[in-house]
Amino acid sequence: MTDTVISSATREVVIGFERPFVIIGERINPTGRRILAEEMAAGNFSRVESDAIAQVQAGAHMLDVNAGIPLADEPAILARTVQLVQSITDLPLSIDSSIVAALEAGLSVYKGKALVNSVTGEEDRLESVLPLVKKYGAAVVAISNDETGISHDPNERFEVAKKIVHRALDHGIPASDVVVDPLVMPIGAINQAGVQVMALVHRLKTELKVNTTCGASNVSFGLPERNGINAAFLTMAIGAGLTSAITNPCHEEVMKAVMGADVMMGHDPDCARWIRRFRQVPAAGAEGEAARGRRESRRRRG
Amino acid sequence: MTDTVISSATREVVIGFERPFVIIGERINPTGRRILAEEMAAGNFSRVESDAIAQVQAGAHMLDVNAGIPLADEPAILARTVQLVQSITDLPLSIDSSIVAALEAGLSVYKGKALVNSVTGEEDRLESVLPLVKKYGAAVVAISNDETGISHDPNERFEVAKKIVHRALDHGIPASDVVVDPLVMPIGAINQAGVQVMALVHRLKTELKVNTTCGASNVSFGLPERNGINAAFLTMAIGAGLTSAITNPCHEEVMKAVMGADVMMGHDPDCARWIRRFRQVPAAGAEGEAARGRRESRRRRG
Repeated sequence: MTDTVISSATREVVIGFERPFVIIGERINPTGRRILAEEMAAGNFSRVESDAIAQVQAGAHMLDVNAGIPLADEPAILARTVQLVQSITDLPLSIDSSIVAALEAGLSVYKGKALVNSVTGEEDRLESVLPLVKKYGAAVVAISNDETGISHDPNERFEVAKKIVHRALDHGIPASDVVVDPLVMPIGAINQAGVQVMALVHRLKTELKVNTTCGASNVSFGLPERNGINAAFLTMAIGAGLTSAITNPCHEEVMKAVMGADVMMGHDPDCARWIRRFRQVPAAGAEGEAARGRRESRRRRG
Repeated sequence: MTDTVISSATREVVIGFERPFVIIGERINPTGRRILAEEMAAGNFSRVESDAIAQVQAGAHMLDVNAGIPLADEPAILARTVQLVQSITDLPLSIDSSIVAALEAGLSVYKGKALVNSVTGEEDRLESVLPLVKKYGAAVVAISNDETGISHDPNERFEVAKKIVHRALDHGIPASDVVVDPLVMPIGAINQAGVQVMALVHRLKTELKVNTTCGASNVSFGLPERNGINAAFLTMAIGAGLTSAITNPCHEEVMKAVMGADVMMGHDPDCARWIRRFRQVPAAGAEGEAARGRRESRRRRG
């Protein structure tokens, strides 16, 4: 099976079909967060620090780090952010930028094997990002769009993913170090977005045999009660073969859905993580506690 | 595609691959409910009435009716229960008994096309239940076990399902009127139960091309926070092709998961039902009643 190993100086995370789902925390990203952007540009990283800690505590397995601030010195800020986050947590990082110099700045200070986020199927991106990935021995997120944009046809997106995987091989990067992002469309705008992405994820697993990731919350854009839609998406996508996602681990409903999906996939042996997480939590009604207590004590005697 | 039409005197429900998921309310069932059993045996149906109303209000599409009370006159009680429930709601019913005479008593008073719950692959069941299903023009739930019990091998369960579908055809019952129950095992005991049932549901959809149903909550037996596991199971199973389930519609978390899965499958055009349900609802706590009330009054006007 295809295992993608990402590491920090002292910890490894493995993304794979026979592994628990990997949550990559998305919060350290100034895009659309004006206050965070201003603080980071001014050299104030206290919010980066608290976001890192909150995501670790919420159960993220990796953290994505992005420093995309207009007009700022993104390479320098990204490198500094990577160093800061690595001083706070030993979770492996995804280094996230659309600027190649920023990716290189981040990679040059990173301790371990990073996930580079991202390369697309565009010719200039392939030939500038893949050599970097190879040079630093990293893994890479491959986004399935190219010069023609994002195809609405999932078969075309599959072909773009295939092209990136083959080109990576040309650069000496094994398919196991390419994590494909099938691109998740907002289902409020495209009714078939869910069905299409499930089919694509399944093909990526069974035909191209690569791991997958995605920005999960995009699916619920514009809808109320987004976490409910995100939970449904992730659960169904994990069933179809999705092996990681870049999302907000601080949303309890989403994390619970992922834990439930892990149970369903047989990736939580004896349901041990599920039981550890939920056996002592008071439920909405007072009933929960007592009933669970009784069940638990039965189990312990049994 | 395979559409299974079930009806009452005035309403049709269609179970099908291109249709919203069908929830069959499980509550009217004295098994394991001592008080309900005693009341029903004594001719007191007030709890049946309130359970019917609660499930209708919670959004069930059909109701299962079972009167399995040890030492009681099950045929008479089941017939009376069917008549009572049909006087309260126009949702189509699933008539549920392991006693053939009780199934016939229920069918003989039922108005519309019922779902008979159930037949197994056992020879005597096939030859006693299928003629009844044909006589009353009903549809039937086919449980994929036979004389040898419930196989742990999903391929054997598939073969049993196939045998029942073929035997039904011999009796003049089309495959579209057979809804297969793949049998859901407790995942706390069998780690691969989820993966197995997903694969079986997928084969039943793509190879045998039949609709499916199951007692969904069995999957979480013995675990804490069962609704979270049930929600994960249903979402993933709907992705694999499950088209209905017998479950408790009064569990908000489970209903939300099913609604989210419908969105993901493209079975909630423009996400209209999701938006109607969630756009005006305060986040937690007090919402339930008021929102349900508004929905009900809209439905009645609609």
